[in-house]
Amino acid sequence: MDADVIVVGAGVAGLVTADRLAASGRRVLVLEARDRVGGRTLTADVPGFPGQVVDQGGQWAGPGQDLLYKELARFGLTTYAQQSGGGAAVVVFRGKARRYTGRIPKLDPLTLADVGQTQLRFDRLARTVDLAAPWRTPRAEQLDGQTFETWLRRVCWTERGRDFFRTACEAVFATLPSNLSLLHALFYAASGTSLENLITTTGGAQQDRVTEGMGTLAVRLAAHLGDRVRLNTPVRAVSHDADGVRVRTDTGELTAARLVVAVPPTLAGRIAYTPAMPARRDQLTQRAPHGGIIKCHAVYAEPFWRADGLSAEAASDRGPVKVAFDATPPGDGAPGILLAFLDGPESLRLGELPPEQRRDEVLRSLTRFVGPRALDPVAFLERDWNAEEWTRGCYGAHLPPGAWTQVGAALREPVGRVHWAGTETAERWCGYIDGAISSGERAAAEVLSA
Amino acid sequence: MDADVIVVGAGVAGLVTADRLAASGRRVLVLEARDRVGGRTLTADVPGFPGQVVDQGGQWAGPGQDLLYKELARFGLTTYAQQSGGGAAVVVFRGKARRYTGRIPKLDPLTLADVGQTQLRFDRLARTVDLAAPWRTPRAEQLDGQTFETWLRRVCWTERGRDFFRTACEAVFATLPSNLSLLHALFYAASGTSLENLITTTGGAQQDRVTEGMGTLAVRLAAHLGDRVRLNTPVRAVSHDADGVRVRTDTGELTAARLVVAVPPTLAGRIAYTPAMPARRDQLTQRAPHGGIIKCHAVYAEPFWRADGLSAEAASDRGPVKVAFDATPPGDGAPGILLAFLDGPESLRLGELPPEQRRDEVLRSLTRFVGPRALDPVAFLERDWNAEEWTRGCYGAHLPPGAWTQVGAALREPVGRVHWAGTETAERWCGYIDGAISSGERAAAEVLSA
Repeated sequence: MDADVIVVGAGVAGLVTADRLAASGRRVLVLEARDRVGGRTLTADVPGFPGQVVDQGGQWAGPGQDLLYKELARFGLTTYAQQSGGGAAVVVFRGKARRYTGRIPKLDPLTLADVGQTQLRFDRLARTVDLAAPWRTPRAEQLDGQTFETWLRRVCWTERGRDFFRTACEAVFATLPSNLSLLHALFYAASGTSLENLITTTGGAQQDRVTEGMGTLAVRLAAHLGDRVRLNTPVRAVSHDADGVRVRTDTGELTAARLVVAVPPTLAGRIAYTPAMPARRDQLTQRAPHGGIIKCHAVYAEPFWRADGLSAEAASDRGPVKVAFDATPPGDGAPGILLAFLDGPESLRLGELPPEQRRDEVLRSLTRFVGPRALDPVAFLERDWNAEEWTRGCYGAHLPPGAWTQVGAALREPVGRVHWAGTETAERWCGYIDGAISSGERAAAEVLSA
Repeated sequence: MDADVIVVGAGVAGLVTADRLAASGRRVLVLEARDRVGGRTLTADVPGFPGQVVDQGGQWAGPGQDLLYKELARFGLTTYAQQSGGGAAVVVFRGKARRYTGRIPKLDPLTLADVGQTQLRFDRLARTVDLAAPWRTPRAEQLDGQTFETWLRRVCWTERGRDFFRTACEAVFATLPSNLSLLHALFYAASGTSLENLITTTGGAQQDRVTEGMGTLAVRLAAHLGDRVRLNTPVRAVSHDADGVRVRTDTGELTAARLVVAVPPTLAGRIAYTPAMPARRDQLTQRAPHGGIIKCHAVYAEPFWRADGLSAEAASDRGPVKVAFDATPPGDGAPGILLAFLDGPESLRLGELPPEQRRDEVLRSLTRFVGPRALDPVAFLERDWNAEEWTRGCYGAHLPPGAWTQVGAALREPVGRVHWAGTETAERWCGYIDGAISSGERAAAEVLSA
């Protein structure tokens, strides 16, 4: 056999799986389709500013993500605060821009009250979710039989309040509340502590950035694994039986005792398995679509918004840019960088435009947050994750109504000698890098105990 | 080039596409993954009764399906009435069996009134759907932002009434109303005239059977096409550019000027395209899961239920068999055959049982409809469409909330030289064999005019 274990995908989940197996003395091979490691994390150089980087993929760490902080520390990677520039945030609602400091966006009192009561009810429901088995949550069928949008229309009294949650939903899930099972929204929030935690910078899931770039974590992990990682090797087919697994790539076949598939369910479903996957597992891969993200960085000579007392943290109920952040690197000589997310349906629409037109729409949209100087960046970077053949949408999978209760049990359950990793399979921090790490550790432990 | 046009999939849609192209003088090749043609139609011999057949796949024709009747007539295939045995239907609701004749099941007056008003409101909404572009339906976002289940809970007053529609939904969509976008349920019903039409035998979508078996239509179409059809040839990858398409199979590559992919969206998404499909198209294939069906036939020496005055048309609010029909072939010497559908989540659960246990559950369930003699068939056939690698669920795709309005436009839109056929792409009779035929004619016309 070519290895004890073959891992499909050199994202963080796959690399951690391989790392833990290698540490236990197993011969392991990681097969990666792309010409790079990192999956949905990717650090890029800033053109014109040598040594400066931005994260074009996942980038944040926050309280409770102990596995992530530990893994960063292991490779000597350092963090800095997202809000290190200080200043006020901006919310543009119904076309009107308002500054605010602290956690609570400046909205009218009625909307704020409505947001408060809705959040309270959402959190109360979220706490009832069985994270290990969401389908065993009390009243699971009922929660899973409706969309998050339906729930919002029933519970949230004001259209402004609903728009607040729609914007929050897009920021967190990269898709509209219409697309989500309520049970999935509740699970995901509880998995990351609470919905508020997922939309918060300081003290929340967007608290810290990695100085060297979050994408560096996968690069260091891969360097540690050395020639166990093979790039440009998409896995097309897998044969599996009681004796082992046989993996077909474009350049040949490889054999191992076990396989860990560490790519999102929708991509795992595109591999040709022999024998074919059981019906429930296949159904799951048919019902775990990705959200949509184009991540843009506008680079300026300096973070001009800071002089205006702005943090560049911004949100709006209207696109194309609904959420923005300061992405200025720490230290001297760093340029000022604005990070703009295009998400959900807007990311599909903008992805179909010529690049210059998309850039224009993004920059014009940013002027609502930081003024007209946003229009003249010295550089502009973008990454359309929807167009990437080996991701096909970001941040990750969401389950539509009915999927958790009908086929959710197939998410983690091994099929013979085939195991599943990836942040989508995590109980805690599902969809986040910490979840990718825990999923890799869980998959490795599964293989070792098998 | 190996052909002017390559067609992927030798189901009815693919075969009709090829037939129309061949009739227009184009050189065409149909590549089929299976060792048979027909896709989701399949006629099988009845063991012990030479010359007698059952349809293990799609089997009915009904008023308004003019293309299907025309195609059947073209190949000399004949039809007979589903209800040719006469007799009363049975409904088992809340454990209580009642016989009835005519269209209206015997339910208590309150439930009947509730079903009536709900159906009226559903049909009224369904008539507003833009069949050519469901995303342009008035209030499309709102209709698409909720599940059919949510709408039922709001509009239908009684739990019994809801259970009636849940059973109807499973019969029509092979999945629960929790899984369906309301807009999709409305579109599908309007596409097949009305929800009532889709659950009706005489005068409706289950009116007629094909004497020779519906699966024979694809066999005859394929015979007509001759060596243009290649079996055992799954298409793994497609390269496409302005000059043409290159198709990779397990045995080599084939080239053509254009490609028609005539398999359901979720399977079309498993082909590796170079360049990768546009984001919107890929998202669509991530969001068009299949329902679940195991189709069972219990064969008896004679149709004993007819002597009891029963038609064997039966429905229940409880499984495992929620819907059954008489599948007795016409003519002398034919055995009595009961057709039992296992659908939705029940089909997944039962698909995981050993065959004898599944058979036992099905037969016991049938006794509720036709009495204890159901327990002793002389033969038992079953087809688990969920387990079939080249179908992965039946009857076909349904769209979850948000999909029609966000990515529905990608369903039929060609991508360069790649075109899409299959019943899922039909405006009229979407999900039915008639829709497969019209989709093939539309795709052929598209190619010819390109």
